[in-house]
Amino acid sequence: MADSPNCDLKSLSPLQLFERVTEQGEKVRALKAGKAPKDEIDAAVRMLLSLKLSYKTTTGQDYQAGLPPKDLVLINNGTTKEEDEDLVDPWNVQTSNAKGVDYDKLIVRFGSSKIDTDLINRIERATGQKPHHFLRRGIFFSHRDMDQVLDAYENKKPFYLYTGRGPSSQAMHVGHLIPFMFTKWLQEVFDVPLVIQLTDDEKYLWKDMTIEKAYEYARENAKDIIACGFDINKTFIFSDLDYLGTSAGFYKNIVKVQKHVTFNQVKGIFGFTDSDCIGKISFPAIQAAPSFSSSFPQIFNGKENIQCLIPCAIDQDPYFRMTRDVAPRIGQPKPALLHSVFFPALQGAQTKMSASDPNSSIFLTDTPKQIKTKINKHAFSGGRDTIEEHRKYGGNCDVDVSIMYLTFFLEDDDRLEQLKQAYTSGELLTGELKKVLIETMQPLVAAHQERRKQVTDEIVKQFMTPRKLAFEF
Amino acid sequence: MADSPNCDLKSLSPLQLFERVTEQGEKVRALKAGKAPKDEIDAAVRMLLSLKLSYKTTTGQDYQAGLPPKDLVLINNGTTKEEDEDLVDPWNVQTSNAKGVDYDKLIVRFGSSKIDTDLINRIERATGQKPHHFLRRGIFFSHRDMDQVLDAYENKKPFYLYTGRGPSSQAMHVGHLIPFMFTKWLQEVFDVPLVIQLTDDEKYLWKDMTIEKAYEYARENAKDIIACGFDINKTFIFSDLDYLGTSAGFYKNIVKVQKHVTFNQVKGIFGFTDSDCIGKISFPAIQAAPSFSSSFPQIFNGKENIQCLIPCAIDQDPYFRMTRDVAPRIGQPKPALLHSVFFPALQGAQTKMSASDPNSSIFLTDTPKQIKTKINKHAFSGGRDTIEEHRKYGGNCDVDVSIMYLTFFLEDDDRLEQLKQAYTSGELLTGELKKVLIETMQPLVAAHQERRKQVTDEIVKQFMTPRKLAFEF
Repeated sequence: MADSPNCDLKSLSPLQLFERVTEQGEKVRALKAGKAPKDEIDAAVRMLLSLKLSYKTTTGQDYQAGLPPKDLVLINNGTTKEEDEDLVDPWNVQTSNAKGVDYDKLIVRFGSSKIDTDLINRIERATGQKPHHFLRRGIFFSHRDMDQVLDAYENKKPFYLYTGRGPSSQAMHVGHLIPFMFTKWLQEVFDVPLVIQLTDDEKYLWKDMTIEKAYEYARENAKDIIACGFDINKTFIFSDLDYLGTSAGFYKNIVKVQKHVTFNQVKGIFGFTDSDCIGKISFPAIQAAPSFSSSFPQIFNGKENIQCLIPCAIDQDPYFRMTRDVAPRIGQPKPALLHSVFFPALQGAQTKMSASDPNSSIFLTDTPKQIKTKINKHAFSGGRDTIEEHRKYGGNCDVDVSIMYLTFFLEDDDRLEQLKQAYTSGELLTGELKKVLIETMQPLVAAHQERRKQVTDEIVKQFMTPRKLAFEF
Repeated sequence: MADSPNCDLKSLSPLQLFERVTEQGEKVRALKAGKAPKDEIDAAVRMLLSLKLSYKTTTGQDYQAGLPPKDLVLINNGTTKEEDEDLVDPWNVQTSNAKGVDYDKLIVRFGSSKIDTDLINRIERATGQKPHHFLRRGIFFSHRDMDQVLDAYENKKPFYLYTGRGPSSQAMHVGHLIPFMFTKWLQEVFDVPLVIQLTDDEKYLWKDMTIEKAYEYARENAKDIIACGFDINKTFIFSDLDYLGTSAGFYKNIVKVQKHVTFNQVKGIFGFTDSDCIGKISFPAIQAAPSFSSSFPQIFNGKENIQCLIPCAIDQDPYFRMTRDVAPRIGQPKPALLHSVFFPALQGAQTKMSASDPNSSIFLTDTPKQIKTKINKHAFSGGRDTIEEHRKYGGNCDVDVSIMYLTFFLEDDDRLEQLKQAYTSGELLTGELKKVLIETMQPLVAAHQERRKQVTDEIVKQFMTPRKLAFEF
């Protein structure tokens, strides 16, 4: 913001323009308050009007104080968050509500769009497939530009999928599978290629971890991801630490994004401070770059400007709001997004599961016995204190973690509805409900373990080798 | 600096510790001034003493307020520079003195060491070669740890050379050749390998330039560099934009450096602000990483921890002060340095030459006629206003740019001395002196052009291909 306000308004992003108008407004107020000379105030007001005009020309919206342009609404980080707001950023999810984060509010705050029945029906028509239960049950609940992706798809212009994971430990829990299960379904029904980023560099930067360890976790996590059943001919999995040194296009896109994002912006979006290392400060560009197909010249046979669709948990949205802000300024299409809710901890929906607390999660390595014990001991119950009360007043499905987990993992809609009704009426006791969850999770985890065993080092190597994917654009 | 002061003092760099002591000292003063409760003041004083002890243990020096640890003295950037100080950073060189920057003062400010007669004699003994006239004439005037490099070299532990260039335009001027001419000599007399970084990414980030243009300049500049006569079997030239996507080791070292440098530090060293793009903020790590041999696994056959020696103009020192601060914390040896003075503009020694002002420089593409005109028209003269006065009082060699240029390019010591004496005495007129300079520069530039013509695209490709260099460590 050090440049003179006139010189380069055209090169500013909507967010930068918004900041300039806000700054200028403050300046005008300060001049008036300080009883500055009339001509000085007049000049500042003229500049303010000119900035507002530029803002309107660029965004198509009138400037409204405190309301950043759509697509760019900042997440309040911890220090500025209003009291009743949930805290949601890539490193924190916190809410005081046992039902979990208020997702309708989040859609408004983030400026995204709700996945409504119309959109779900359209996906069904476009793919000819019954929508995944994650869509039907609102687990993927928000989107950006999914309608445009479908417009293009219906006109035979396909897209590619991009998702990822930060390999913070060897052990993944069932919550980590949600974006991958859904991405696998998208890959199947739309028949499109997929890139999966493992941000081992991010984990090295954020955690007390060596580069070697972060890379080892990336490879171990790749096995669990592959075990979800991705098509080896249409899927490229990469570790940043590895791929950055192998790709002619990836670094070029990173440096392009890095040129178009200021420290002020990442400070606003991610809450970075002056004491943060420069690696963290520049990292958002590394998560942004795979949104552009030119980051993968081998994968897409050199084809650029292919539309990207990113399924992810909503806490990752700040990265992609930033990406969507930069994209047009570096001549790239904006990635579209599908956002999921958070997977709740066994202890309740106030926070998301954490790989660092073994009791907060069902891990993909857990034995049937461990699963049983964890659910019985830790799964937060919406049941009543005594059997008598439960029979009389019924359980509360809105806060019951077993019901939440079954919503994620029990595919049979009728059975789920039946369980909810029986629990609400008091007919089904908490112990019985937990038994259903145990019987759902045990075979699910066992089957995953069985598939993971089949994933040899050779298969991992194939998935992680940059190569042309079996798809023509 | 948000951590609690006790938790991790051991992991702090000398500079970070220095900052902590300074902060704590300010806190104690504030508490005393605010008449805080005695026990609070006592606790703060105890913490201060403990921090000072840690500082002494780490640096071997007592803490002195305002005197950062040697090796780490910050350059004052423009805003904090004292009035009589020269401004020297990677983007600016300014002095009000026609003799140029005060290099003795700079050595004290930067905390480097003077290259004295003893060191020059030692280089002569170690190599069995007469020292380059850049050394004999104080053009390379400052160093860090060159004695340690020689200690090791004398014990048959060789090193590698690293230098570089920011390819800001196609046209290089004769001043750009200085570090390369000297590096070529070092390569020859020590018989060691060399890596040359072309920071095309830096130019893309700092200038209004496309990535393609920056890369094109890098390749064009490589031709001029190769024309200096480097050994193709012992020299690797690389563009960042290119090499980052080809090397398994480079990005890993970059991210290691990025983890160990905070925004506060680069703000202090380079004067970055919150409005700077995140690419600039993280760039110093990219210039740091080639100081570590593990950035070049192909070049050094996977050998790590090989000592690095960096010949460069002193304005690049901030990058390497930062690198030397980080090196021990990521298990790497500190690079040693040899610093040159700046090459003066034709108009005088107040600034360094600039590739963007064609009249400030003799370009490597200039014709003999252009060289003659430029020198006659623009070379700042230390002569008197009239021939009579000049004969009577003599010229001033300290500010005469022709004398300065001849000091760089006329290899014959006796002839140079003779010219200086004749000019000082008034015997030699300015026009006659300029004629000597013209006759020195014309064949030098013509010979360069001739050698550059021999540099085919195929030769450039060979120099720029990562490969094992002909040297065993």
